This record gives sequence, C-alpha cells and structure tokens, in this order.
Amino acid sequence: MFEIIGERVNGLFKDIRTAIAERDPKPLQEWAQKQYDAGAAWIDVNTGPIAGEDEQAEIMAWMVQVVQETVDLPVAIDSTSVKTIEAGLKVAKGKAMINSTTAEQEKMDALFPLAAKYNAAIIALAMNEKGVPKDSEQRIALAMELVANADAHGVPMEDLYIDPLILPVNVAQDHVPEVLETLRQIKYLNNPAPRTTIGLSNVSQKSPDRPLINRAFAVMAIAAGLDSAIMDANDDLLVDEIATASILLNQTIYCDSYIKMFRQR
Amino acid sequence: MFEIIGERVNGLFKDIRTAIAERDPKPLQEWAQKQYDAGAAWIDVNTGPIAGEDEQAEIMAWMVQVVQETVDLPVAIDSTSVKTIEAGLKVAKGKAMINSTTAEQEKMDALFPLAAKYNAAIIALAMNEKGVPKDSEQRIALAMELVANADAHGVPMEDLYIDPLILPVNVAQDHVPEVLETLRQIKYLNNPAPRTTIGLSNVSQKSPDRPLINRAFAVMAIAAGLDSAIMDANDDLLVDEIATASILLNQTIYCDSYIKMFRQR
Repeated sequence: MFEIIGERVNGLFKDIRTAIAERDPKPLQEWAQKQYDAGAAWIDVNTGPIAGEDEQAEIMAWMVQVVQETVDLPVAIDSTSVKTIEAGLKVAKGKAMINSTTAEQEKMDALFPLAAKYNAAIIALAMNEKGVPKDSEQRIALAMELVANADAHGVPMEDLYIDPLILPVNVAQDHVPEVLETLRQIKYLNNPAPRTTIGLSNVSQKSPDRPLINRAFAVMAIAAGLDSAIMDANDDLLVDEIATASILLNQTIYCDSYIKMFRQR
Repeated sequence: MFEIIGERVNGLFKDIRTAIAERDPKPLQEWAQKQYDAGAAWIDVNTGPIAGEDEQAEIMAWMVQVVQETVDLPVAIDSTSVKTIEAGLKVAKGKAMINSTTAEQEKMDALFPLAAKYNAAIIALAMNEKGVPKDSEQRIALAMELVANADAHGVPMEDLYIDPLILPVNVAQDHVPEVLETLRQIKYLNNPAPRTTIGLSNVSQKSPDRPLINRAFAVMAIAAGLDSAIMDANDDLLVDEIATASILLNQTIYCDSYIKMFRQR
C-alpha cells in the first residue's frame, strides 16, 4: 500500500512558522487533522530554520507531541540536526521515521544507529558529499552503500526508505528518466528489497503548472516501484491519481469505490 | 513524439451514425476539426455497423474524403472488412493507417500485403483465434509473430503499431501490469523496434471515474514505451498529462509552454 507522508507541518510554511514563534498549537493541529482526513500515513514534522540547536530540539519535541495528541499517526522527524531528530524520537508515540540520512559516512554512522536504537524507519538520500549523481548507475551505487550500512547497523530493509532524489524538470530534465530507472533497480538490490520514497513536488519547482507535473511524475514513479512520497496530501487530484495507480498496478483489489477506500487507509 | 489517434469519427457514436444515414458531412467535418485543434496526429475513421460490405466500403470512402477535405491529417481506416479497408486506402491522401490486423494467419496474409501495397501503417493486435492472452509472455509471443509476418511482407517496423490490448480494469485487473510489461518488452523484440499503440478508454469501461483511470493508465503506459493511442483527443486533462509525460521522459525539450507546443504538433 502506497504511503503518503504529509509535508505540511513544516516551519518553512508561514502559518507554521508563526505558530512555532507563538507556541500556538492550533495551526499544527489543523494541518495534522487535514492530512489525516486526506489519507496520509505519516505526518512529516520540520521546525524550519531555528537559531540554536537546543531550542530547535525543544521545538521539535513540542511539535511532535502536538501532532500526535491530535491524530493517531506516526511522524517523520525532519531535520539535519541529529540532536533535534533524537529529541523528536524520544517523545514520538509508536513507530517514528527519521528524515533523513545521506550516503555520507559520518551521517550514516550517526543516524543508522539512532534508527536501530528507536526501532525507527529512516529515509536515506542517494547523495553524498559530491552532491546528487547524474545517472541511475551512480544513484544505485549510493543506494547499495545505504543498504549495506543500514544492514550493518541492524536496520531492517522494511524500515529503509531510499530516496533517489528528483530535481526540478525545468533545470534537470535528463535526470527524470534516470530517477525512474533507479526506482526500478532498487527493488533488485537486496532480498527483501528496501522501500523507496521521494520529495515529490521538487520535480515541478518553478514550472508553470506544478500540480499537473506532480501528478504525472507520481504515476510514473509508482509504476516504476515508488512506495511512498513526501507530498501535499491535500491535493485531491494527486491523491486520486495515486489511488488509481495502485489499482492499475493490481496492488489493491479493484472495487468501484476504490478512491474512498484508499483515503480511509 | 507521442501520436494521438482521434477516435471520434466513428459510427458507434450516435451523431456520426445519423450523419452517415443522412450523408451529412457536417458532423464529420466538425469532429475532424476539433480533433485536429486538440493535437491529434491521425483521425480514426470507422463506419460502425453497416449492412452489406459494398455499402460499407462506399461509406468508408465517403467518410475518408470528407475528413481529409477538412483537415490536413492522415486517417486510420478502422474496419474488420478487408474490402472496406481497401476502399478507404484507395481514396486516402498521404500516408494512411490500417486499423487493424490480428495475429491470425488469415488476417495477416490479407492485411500485411495491403499495407505494403499502399505504403500504409498498420495496427496489429496481440491476439489470435484463441482470444486475448492472459500474460505478457503470451502477448510477446504474438507480437513476435506479428513482427515476423510484417517483415516477411515488406512492412517496415516504423509502420507497424503493435497493440498489446488492454481490457477493462474492473474485470481484468491482473492484465494491466502484464500490458505494461508487454509494452516494455516490445522495444527489445527487434532492431529497429516496432511502434506501439492502444485503445486507451477500454481500460476504464464501466468504471465510475473513467477520465481519471484513462489519465493514470496513459501516463504509466507512456513511461513503459507506448508511442500512440486511439483516444479522446478532446479530453484536455488527458492530453495535458500526455504532454507532461513526454516532457518528464525527456522525449521533447522542456520549455514553460510545453503543453501549447504539444498541441501544435
């Protein structure tokens, strides 16, 4: 079953940034509920830029608690700070997700043990200190390093979500087929295979008709093996197409009300 | 470049059936123009059921001429009668397309020579007297027979459009991934590879939200290698998604106005 990771509880959005500054739980609660109602399987939580790691860690813990007091959903703790991630993991109810590590050795050595310690899922980006690879071969090489390191630290494949990284089509059009090929090949990397995810809206950055591009890319990526995406859970046309893709790929049994069923998880 | 084969000049639609009965060219002209404006590369022409093969052949010739007096587009001559097809081929201007042969030997022996004689393209269905195969292996076996027979009759691969046949998802859900796999494998059958096409709206027959299913299936199929489809050229959302799929697969160069460019051919 495809998993939607709702992107909206993020300090990069102005309403959430203001809510954080005023410690007002209401906007976080509203977005948590809206994303739950739309069919999200996870709520991504991101503080946005905060001066001071201690302050950021404390805000993350507050945000995670506000979200989980509102909806019975697991959270993806989204930060580049290990300290902030652990602060979220400590208070999270049920299974949590770390968002994210890269294939940089220092990052993997810090975050895979944390995933193992908290029995958390973890998103692992197919990039390293040299940046985002150009082609599927290099992305797969990094995915292999991520699989090997996760395994060495005792993170099971069902908890590893590899993100092949999609860049905006208007600046890196030739990357798109490479990302689709990477998604196809990841499923042959290991048995059992790791899961896959992607930051969906990145593909359409600065393009005129963003929802259209997001929809078409999502459908292609799911057909290539994508298991989940960090995305706008409240884009109804997008969610409808994702539900339809699952049906067409025979991943869930067809019934006339399949869209309603998909949203009810 | 993906080719839309516009489906609307077909006696199965009531307005065209009436127009044929009254020999009124206007509805045919209107639909030919509408499909041209939407970006169709071919206009499919089908008489619908007509009593008497001579009568049917005469009507086909009339329909083809009416369409091509209106728009400068090639026609796909859509009939199960060889006589009717040849009547269309005789009057068609420019390159025409035969719609269709199956992998039945008798059909192939009648229609591939006709394609060669008229230098016409031809749609070839991956089915035979036993019906539509269940899995991709059997579909590919039939596609191989179609390729071999087309080649033996001097039909070049660029003129051969293999249709793997999609059945309605609500009755044959397990066929859908098999059709996608067939599309992927057809491109490895021969060098140069044959082209591919599909009767798109068949996938959504009797389902509640047909345009949604058509859109999602079209995008997946194009990502799997589909080159053309017999479809509703005037479903704007569908055509937008097809244009977007071509961009995401790096088949046409990205520009902000890519949808407009796609419709202008």
